[in-house]
Amino acid sequence: MIIGELINTSRKTILEAVQTGNSEYIHRIAKEQVDAGADYIDVNCGTMIGNEPEMMRWLVESVQEAVQVPLCIDSPDAQTLDIGLSLASHGQPMINSISGESERYELVLPLVLKHKAKVVALCMDDQGMPQNKEDRLRVVRKLVPGLVTAGIPIGDIYLDPLIIPIGTDNRAAVEVLETLRQIETEFPGVKTVCGLSNVSFGLPNRKVLNQTFMIQTMSAGMDSYILNPLDRTMMGLYICSNALMGKDMYCLEYIQAYRDGLFDDK
Amino acid sequence: MIIGELINTSRKTILEAVQTGNSEYIHRIAKEQVDAGADYIDVNCGTMIGNEPEMMRWLVESVQEAVQVPLCIDSPDAQTLDIGLSLASHGQPMINSISGESERYELVLPLVLKHKAKVVALCMDDQGMPQNKEDRLRVVRKLVPGLVTAGIPIGDIYLDPLIIPIGTDNRAAVEVLETLRQIETEFPGVKTVCGLSNVSFGLPNRKVLNQTFMIQTMSAGMDSYILNPLDRTMMGLYICSNALMGKDMYCLEYIQAYRDGLFDDK
Repeated sequence: MIIGELINTSRKTILEAVQTGNSEYIHRIAKEQVDAGADYIDVNCGTMIGNEPEMMRWLVESVQEAVQVPLCIDSPDAQTLDIGLSLASHGQPMINSISGESERYELVLPLVLKHKAKVVALCMDDQGMPQNKEDRLRVVRKLVPGLVTAGIPIGDIYLDPLIIPIGTDNRAAVEVLETLRQIETEFPGVKTVCGLSNVSFGLPNRKVLNQTFMIQTMSAGMDSYILNPLDRTMMGLYICSNALMGKDMYCLEYIQAYRDGLFDDK
Repeated sequence: MIIGELINTSRKTILEAVQTGNSEYIHRIAKEQVDAGADYIDVNCGTMIGNEPEMMRWLVESVQEAVQVPLCIDSPDAQTLDIGLSLASHGQPMINSISGESERYELVLPLVLKHKAKVVALCMDDQGMPQNKEDRLRVVRKLVPGLVTAGIPIGDIYLDPLIIPIGTDNRAAVEVLETLRQIETEFPGVKTVCGLSNVSFGLPNRKVLNQTFMIQTMSAGMDSYILNPLDRTMMGLYICSNALMGKDMYCLEYIQAYRDGLFDDK
């Protein structure tokens, strides 16, 4: 599953569109992402300190004017999440994110239940960012049973292992791959999600590392990605990877992508 | 480990060089492969029915005039293998290949022992090409103990799972990935090798599928590839994959490849 990441006010063009009320630009970016294969559209205006809830309202309405896919409401602020989720009316919304941190857990859990949302669950707790597989599994082993007991279907939980740069720790990527395989064994039915770009932070030519890491994580069981679906190389590799993993019957999706010209510059 | 595949008379330019005794061209292709990162040079003149042994002699001598890396002597013919191996003087040679087929096994095993060579061991037996993981493991469970008992160090055995096209069987690639993981568990220390291009046979735009399959098989434990090291995209992904798998301390090899311009067109 692909969650399109482009509607985010940390991106200059989106910030400008929000500040000038340019809903046409938001429509265009939302549509382009869906046309390129996004199953969800992430909506994030976390940089708008002070009027984040108001901006979330405007963004959600703008995006939903343009596309029919469900939204991933992305904010550190519970009030903003609640407003975005209340307006999100296309299918089952997603919350980005809950975690094992006590305060966040207490604030976000009621919203997941209230809105019957899917939820991104970060593999971190009050001890901070995970450094290795064991840190992540410690959080997962508390977080998943907690969420399920609270009434959230296991298939609505999207564990995000949290990616740290290989430039700072040689085993950073390997620990994530091993975490994914262990999660699949211990918690069948739970979903997984991540962003890719952190893995290459600090290194040159990050794109190819991010692409490679997507293929690696897919083959270790990752279900979904928060990424830029307009990146044709990335989407081409995603489709190849699905075909090779036996998830694309008769390679029909692959052949269609080829006919549509997705690989034309390759 | 990379085994450069270009010195093969099934390629038109190599055939012409062999037919005209153009050793300069052979020198150039051998050097280019080593410069691009090949650890072994495969030498194959299997299309030269009738004078294969003689052509193997000339090719091995030509390649060794140009480069210092060891050779992978590649032939279905035992006499040709023996001649190539007798001349191969740069480090430990490799034989391509033995298999679980009775006749081939009996003919090639003495050569592996005589020349203390590494050996590619195809996961097939008298029942023919493997269709799934179980077929491959049935062969491996006989082949590896047989070769080890005969005196071949386990680290000199390179199991080739034999790749079948995903276009003919949706699970073709998945079965290989599962085979690799099982081999790693059952026979720690044994090596694995494959060619990549069969996986995409019959599909359009095969390159990207082959690249994706390399990353997938690496993350499932594949040790080595018989490929074209002059394919810059493939080699770039190989280096990315190694870095992400924690095999490139401080990403030094990756950064060097970047400085050398390997990713310039990306």
